Amino acid sequence: MPAIIDYTKEQLEVLQKELLAQYDEFVKAGLSLDMSRGKPAPSQLDLTNDLFTVLNADNCKTETGFDARNYGILDGVPEMKQLFADAFGLKAEQIIVGGTASLSLMFDNIMRIMVTGTEGNIPWSRLDKVTFLCPAPGYDRHFGICERLGIDMIPIRMTETGPDMDQVEELVLNDASIKGIWCVPKYSNPQGICYSDETVKRLASMKCAAPDFRIFWDNAYGVHPIYEDVKVLNILEEAEKAGNPNRPLYFASTSKITFPGAGVSFVAANADMVEEIKSVMTYQTISHDKLNQLRHVRFFKNAEGLHAHMAKLADAMKPKFEIVLSTLEKELAGTGLLTWTTPKGGYFVAVDTIDGCAKETVRLVKEAGVVMTGAGATYPYKKDPADTNIRIAPTYPTCDELQQAMDVFCVCVKLAAVNKLLG
Amino acid sequence: MPAIIDYTKEQLEVLQKELLAQYDEFVKAGLSLDMSRGKPAPSQLDLTNDLFTVLNADNCKTETGFDARNYGILDGVPEMKQLFADAFGLKAEQIIVGGTASLSLMFDNIMRIMVTGTEGNIPWSRLDKVTFLCPAPGYDRHFGICERLGIDMIPIRMTETGPDMDQVEELVLNDASIKGIWCVPKYSNPQGICYSDETVKRLASMKCAAPDFRIFWDNAYGVHPIYEDVKVLNILEEAEKAGNPNRPLYFASTSKITFPGAGVSFVAANADMVEEIKSVMTYQTISHDKLNQLRHVRFFKNAEGLHAHMAKLADAMKPKFEIVLSTLEKELAGTGLLTWTTPKGGYFVAVDTIDGCAKETVRLVKEAGVVMTGAGATYPYKKDPADTNIRIAPTYPTCDELQQAMDVFCVCVKLAAVNKLLG
Repeated sequence: MPAIIDYTKEQLEVLQKELLAQYDEFVKAGLSLDMSRGKPAPSQLDLTNDLFTVLNADNCKTETGFDARNYGILDGVPEMKQLFADAFGLKAEQIIVGGTASLSLMFDNIMRIMVTGTEGNIPWSRLDKVTFLCPAPGYDRHFGICERLGIDMIPIRMTETGPDMDQVEELVLNDASIKGIWCVPKYSNPQGICYSDETVKRLASMKCAAPDFRIFWDNAYGVHPIYEDVKVLNILEEAEKAGNPNRPLYFASTSKITFPGAGVSFVAANADMVEEIKSVMTYQTISHDKLNQLRHVRFFKNAEGLHAHMAKLADAMKPKFEIVLSTLEKELAGTGLLTWTTPKGGYFVAVDTIDGCAKETVRLVKEAGVVMTGAGATYPYKKDPADTNIRIAPTYPTCDELQQAMDVFCVCVKLAAVNKLLG
Repeated sequence: MPAIIDYTKEQLEVLQKELLAQYDEFVKAGLSLDMSRGKPAPSQLDLTNDLFTVLNADNCKTETGFDARNYGILDGVPEMKQLFADAFGLKAEQIIVGGTASLSLMFDNIMRIMVTGTEGNIPWSRLDKVTFLCPAPGYDRHFGICERLGIDMIPIRMTETGPDMDQVEELVLNDASIKGIWCVPKYSNPQGICYSDETVKRLASMKCAAPDFRIFWDNAYGVHPIYEDVKVLNILEEAEKAGNPNRPLYFASTSKITFPGAGVSFVAANADMVEEIKSVMTYQTISHDKLNQLRHVRFFKNAEGLHAHMAKLADAMKPKFEIVLSTLEKELAGTGLLTWTTPKGGYFVAVDTIDGCAKETVRLVKEAGVVMTGAGATYPYKKDPADTNIRIAPTYPTCDELQQAMDVFCVCVKLAAVNKLLG
C-alpha cells in the first residue's frame, strides 16, 4: 500500500467515506473534553496536597528568625531563594522571588523597561518601534504580551536545537529596534525542544545592534523531565563569559510543580539587573507571599525533595505521553499526513499536518466534542503561515479520556487531509 | 505657669537643662525599638493563626465547584468577591481580586495607563508631563510610586474633612497634565482623617481638564474602626451619580486584617474600567492565588465574620492608641509645642511640632534608640515644607515598649522645641 499522501483520487474517496462514518460515530458519542491548556490533572495535584498542612503558626519564621506573617523581605525568604538556586543550578543572590506566576514577572519586567528603561537606555514606550524575536511555534502568552503592548513580533524558525540562530544573529545585528527574544530553552512549549549548547552560547554572545537587548529566558520546564533530564547550559553563566552579563532575564515557577493557581515564581539575573529590578519592584510591593514561600520550602525540604516530587509527576504523566505517541504511531506513521515531536520532558507534543490542515483538523475535533489549543495559537498574531501546527496538551484528561480524544484526533487529521487532497 | 512656647529665655534655659538630663538617661538606657512602619504586632497576628489550618484538600473547591488548586479564574473566586463586596459596601461585579498587596494593584494600574492609556486617551508615558495631586501629609508609598515613575506631584493641604477641595478643584479645572489624585478616604494615613460627604461628592463631580483623570481611592483602613466606625460615602456610587463613572479606582486589601505578608487585595471600579483592567491583566497573569482567597473566605465565613475579627484587632490596638494619646496629653497639652490628631480608627497618630522641629525631634529620638517614620516621609519628595509633621505608628511595639518610646518622644519634642526657641 502507498502512503495516504500518495493515494489516487479513487482511493482517497473510498477512505473519505470510511473516515466520515468513523467521524459520525464520534460526534454521536457526544464527547466533552477540554485539552486546550497545559493544565495538570487533579490526580497530579493530589500529589501536592501536603502543601496545605506543612506550614503552621509554629514554623512560620524564616531561618533568620523573621516572622513571615508580617511585612518585609522584598525579594523572598532566604531558604526559598536557596532552594530555587539549588534546583535550577543558579546562585541564591541571582534570584528575586515573585508571586504565583512567572508570567507576571515577565510582564512586569517588560512594563518596567517600557516605562523606566534599562541600563540608562531610552524607555521602550518612548520609541517608535520595539520588536521581539519569537521562535515559533512557541508559547501563546508570550506573544500575547507583545501584541497587547504594541511590540512588533518577528517569527523565528525553530530547529531541533532551538531557534534558527543564523536568522536570529542576522536580525539582531542589523536592527536596533529588536529589543528581545522569547526563549523556552528546555522541553519547549509546544515542541519539547531543548536548546543545544551551541544555541545557548550563540544567544549569549551574539552581537546586537540594541544595547538593551534582553533574552527572556522562560525556563518553565527546567526541572520537568519525563524520559530524560536533558542538560541545557546556564544562560546567565554563558552571558557573563561572553561579556553580556545583563542580557538574560531568567524566569521559572512552581506552576507545573505544585499548584498552578497558588505557586511561587522567580526571576534570576546578574547582580546589576537584580538591583535594577528591585529598584522598581520596591515601589510595586512590600513583599510577595512569604508564607507561601515557606510552605513550599517545608514541602520540598530541599532541591532533592523537589526533584523527587518531579519524578512522581513524571510517573503520572508518562502513560499519557505514551497514549499520545503510540496512537499517533499506530494511526498516522507512514501516512505522510502528520509529523510530530517526541519530547523527553515538559508538557506538550506538537504535531504538523500537511499544509493548510491545522485549523480544519482542530475544527473537526471540536465539532466532535474535544477542545484543543486553537490552531495558530502557537504563532505570533495567531498566524501559522502554513497552517500546520497543533499543540497537544495531554496532561489534564484521564487516560481513558485521552485515548478517546486521540482516536478522534487521528481520524480528524486524516479526514481534514483527505478533504484537502481531494480539493 | 505660661505655656512653654511663651517662656522667657531664662525659663527655657532651666527647662533645657532638665530635658537634657532626662534625655541622657534615655540614651544610657540603651533602648532599641523600631516604630518606623505600620506593622501589626505579633500578638495581633496571632488572632489570625486559624488561617493556617482552615483550608485543606477537601474544601479547596469554589462554590461553583472549580478546583482552586489549578489554573483559571482571572478576577478571583466568586465567594471572595462577594465577601469583599459585602464588607466594603460594593458590588461583587465591581471587584477584581489581586495578589497579596493593594500597592501592587495601584502600581500596576498606573503602569497600565502609562503604557496603554485609558479610555482611548494617549498613554501617559507618551506625554511630556503627568501630574498627580497628593494630599499631604499622606502615605509615603503613594508618593514613592510617582517619584519613581517620573510623575510630578503637587501637595494638597489636608483639612479635617479631607483634602482642601477649593485647591483641588481649581487645579484640576485648569491643568490637563493633572491625571490623578491619591486619596486615603477613611482614617487617613497618617492623620486618621475621614473624608466628609461634601469632599467625596466634590471629588466625584468636579470638572477636570484631563478626560482621563483618575481618583486612586486607597481605602486601606475602610474596615478598621477603633473607637467609631465613621461612614464615608462610596466614591463609585457618587462618581456614577455625577456622570463620571470611570473616574475612581478603588483599592483595599487584608494586609492589616490578616497577615500583611500573605493577604488578599482587590481593585474595584465600574463596569467599563473592570473590563479595561482585565483586558491588560489577562496578559499579566492567569490568576492570582485562589487558594489564599479561599483560605480567607473559610476563615471569615462572611462580612460579619470579618467585622467581628476587626473588633478583636481594635481591642488589641486600643490600649496602644491610649498610651500615645494620654502621654501626649499629659506631657504636651497646653505647652504650645505640639498638636496631634485623635483618630477614630486606622493605624496612626500624626503630630505637628512647631515649625522646623520634626526632623530634629526624630533625630533625637533615634539617637535614644527609637526609630520612627522619617520626618518628611509623609510629604511628596519627602519634603515637609514647614518641617513639622511626624507619624506615630503605635501598633508594633508591646505596651511597655510603646510607653517607653512615648516618654522618649515627648522629651525629644520638648528638647527640639526649646533648642529651637533658644535659637
